[in-house]
Amino acid sequence: MAKKVGVAILGLGVVGGGTYQTLVEHHDFYLKTQKADITVEAVLDKAVARLDALGVPEELRAKSIEEVLANPAVDIVVETIGGIGVAKAFVTAALCSGKSVVTSNKELICKFSHELEDIAKRNGCGLYYEASCVGGVPIIRTLIDGVQANKISKMMGIVNGTTNYILTKMSTEGADYAETLKEAQRLGYAEFDPTNDVEGFDSTYKLSILSSMAFHTKVPYTKIFREGISGIATEDIAYGKELGYTLKLLAIGKNTEKGIEVRVHPTFIPNAHPLASVNDAYNAVYLCGDAVDDIMLYGRGAGALPTASAVVSDVIYAATHSEIKYSTFKNTANAERNVKFISNFESAYYIRLSVEDKAGVLAKITGVFAKNGISIVEIEQKGKKTDEAGVPLIVVTHQTRENSVKNAVAKIGETGIAKVEAVIRVE
Amino acid sequence: MAKKVGVAILGLGVVGGGTYQTLVEHHDFYLKTQKADITVEAVLDKAVARLDALGVPEELRAKSIEEVLANPAVDIVVETIGGIGVAKAFVTAALCSGKSVVTSNKELICKFSHELEDIAKRNGCGLYYEASCVGGVPIIRTLIDGVQANKISKMMGIVNGTTNYILTKMSTEGADYAETLKEAQRLGYAEFDPTNDVEGFDSTYKLSILSSMAFHTKVPYTKIFREGISGIATEDIAYGKELGYTLKLLAIGKNTEKGIEVRVHPTFIPNAHPLASVNDAYNAVYLCGDAVDDIMLYGRGAGALPTASAVVSDVIYAATHSEIKYSTFKNTANAERNVKFISNFESAYYIRLSVEDKAGVLAKITGVFAKNGISIVEIEQKGKKTDEAGVPLIVVTHQTRENSVKNAVAKIGETGIAKVEAVIRVE
Repeated sequence: MAKKVGVAILGLGVVGGGTYQTLVEHHDFYLKTQKADITVEAVLDKAVARLDALGVPEELRAKSIEEVLANPAVDIVVETIGGIGVAKAFVTAALCSGKSVVTSNKELICKFSHELEDIAKRNGCGLYYEASCVGGVPIIRTLIDGVQANKISKMMGIVNGTTNYILTKMSTEGADYAETLKEAQRLGYAEFDPTNDVEGFDSTYKLSILSSMAFHTKVPYTKIFREGISGIATEDIAYGKELGYTLKLLAIGKNTEKGIEVRVHPTFIPNAHPLASVNDAYNAVYLCGDAVDDIMLYGRGAGALPTASAVVSDVIYAATHSEIKYSTFKNTANAERNVKFISNFESAYYIRLSVEDKAGVLAKITGVFAKNGISIVEIEQKGKKTDEAGVPLIVVTHQTRENSVKNAVAKIGETGIAKVEAVIRVE
Repeated sequence: MAKKVGVAILGLGVVGGGTYQTLVEHHDFYLKTQKADITVEAVLDKAVARLDALGVPEELRAKSIEEVLANPAVDIVVETIGGIGVAKAFVTAALCSGKSVVTSNKELICKFSHELEDIAKRNGCGLYYEASCVGGVPIIRTLIDGVQANKISKMMGIVNGTTNYILTKMSTEGADYAETLKEAQRLGYAEFDPTNDVEGFDSTYKLSILSSMAFHTKVPYTKIFREGISGIATEDIAYGKELGYTLKLLAIGKNTEKGIEVRVHPTFIPNAHPLASVNDAYNAVYLCGDAVDDIMLYGRGAGALPTASAVVSDVIYAATHSEIKYSTFKNTANAERNVKFISNFESAYYIRLSVEDKAGVLAKITGVFAKNGISIVEIEQKGKKTDEAGVPLIVVTHQTRENSVKNAVAKIGETGIAKVEAVIRVE
């Protein structure tokens, strides 16, 4: 006998619409393969034109959240509204009424999962959020049920499609940031106000969720070092290429003896690294576990149907499992250790200076690095471009501390021996 | 309260040893993160030296399978013996005694999962086999609980580390097959008798398991078209490179309107394909689903600890979930449709001929292709090598039928206008 499961969808935008479509079109497929009779019992969205376009029957169109929650046929509530206003109120109300919630809302989960999981637990229902991170890629399911045998020491992710699209285009076409952003906006890959994506805010939300799960402890997004891609010059991508590096906006989490280190910034990685060939709007998460060693999941990080794949996978999971794993933060409400977050992290650095082409300058610059305990792997002076005052000098350092580099860069600026044009971390 | 779960391990070889080590070393970690008190209660292996090396305490060393199964502290039996003799008998006995089984045994699951799942069902216990395919990569968990919302149309996998290591070395170092195989044997990447790996048998077992799960119907390994890598010439890898292709031994499964198509063979894929940069002993599985679009999982396909990661993930899953999904074949015992398997599949082809460098030959060859309805994308005559009778002629075809190519190749051979040196499928 197939288990009957009723779903309500709150918010029929891109992801909600994709979810509606997927559930309706796959009803018989899930009946056959999952032995679950999953039906959409209610939708809530004020945009009548949108409901019409999706062909939502009149009888499924609810007037209010109260109507949805009072409907005994609704077992699972899908929240695809976004933001932390109405969405938070509706999710809270759904959990309080004993209905499990599936959400694609990264900001909500990043900021309030703790509180919401408590409410879920008290009401004996589940809170699922696979779709909140990396679209259709089942990274959360993998963390919970796929690599849970491992202590995870490192996570590196390309978790934002907009910035990866822009960096890929800048790299392959040599176009500059501003024009590539414009093209991305024209094609719908970037929003009118792109700040959330290009300045790395979106990536910090996802890194907070994923590193909390990977490291079994709450990692607040406010602890994440953040730097966006808007300051990236095309020439640095080109110089990096010559050195064998690809530039990506990475979300990096490390769990070390000394503490947790979380950061989002443009990063040079060796061309042979699996993340280096993740291009365009594709996303990927690379993990290191103590048993599994390294592993990577790759796929579409956004879009109506890929994200709906994650939402519906959660719906099916909720419909076919009675155990609810409050996995993310199960050890964090009463964390056994005071988690230490490392801000003065270690990294290798690519530094581009603009120098005067005359004797003694190089000695002065290397002197500043040496004084700050920074050891240099490679230093290369490039040919002078006609439109520039100085010549480019590229320095690649060994592993060093963020603060040492900050000090060296400040010192070089102060003394006026060179202009610091770019500082890019290398993993 | 932590749930108490006892584990027995049958066979303490590479994977069994890694499993023992992982369970012992991570006991407290699982207690904390999984609220499960998982202990090894028994091991069964005649190799005393091995048990000593692993530091297995005397009291855990069982004398017989009967002793293991009679132990009330044992809830889950891990089978890491391999093969289908003793392993099958022990797994059957364990399931009959009501203990859930976790196995890394691809041959057993490929050939007998149907029978074993029936026994498991009748006895209300679970059968888990994440470790049977692609080592530490949680591809089976992903198929069951990660992308289950999708109808999967295509799967392409690099599922054998030995052959991927050999092809990578041949490609990067230009060495020939025989010497690369020898080096792989020396390094422990290939066995003394490498047939199982290099002729693709190992890959067919894994493709059988994975495509059965992906397509929700039993795909017997006997239905899989198989061709190994032992006939691959280094020059074809080099010519492929010039055309923008990378050579991989792929396990390919397609689920189309016309039927299921499953094949294991050396395959040229475009350099930009995510599978093309999966090198050395790494494995990866690339899937296309109707909602998620394309997705890839990448990681170590073999080795003690990576495979133990998969075994222990299954142990934890079995310990923390009461619902057992007999996912692989849940729709196949009474399959609703007669599954049709396609043997005359469609593909593009790379064909290398050795031709006499004289007028009219090209016209004759293209004539044979045309008569067999084969349309040509690219044709290129290479410079003559001093040690060869003819000159190499490379032909790349559009999508065509396997049988058409077979006919054309036979015809070219018969009429003696050229010698067919290599036929490699292109995806």
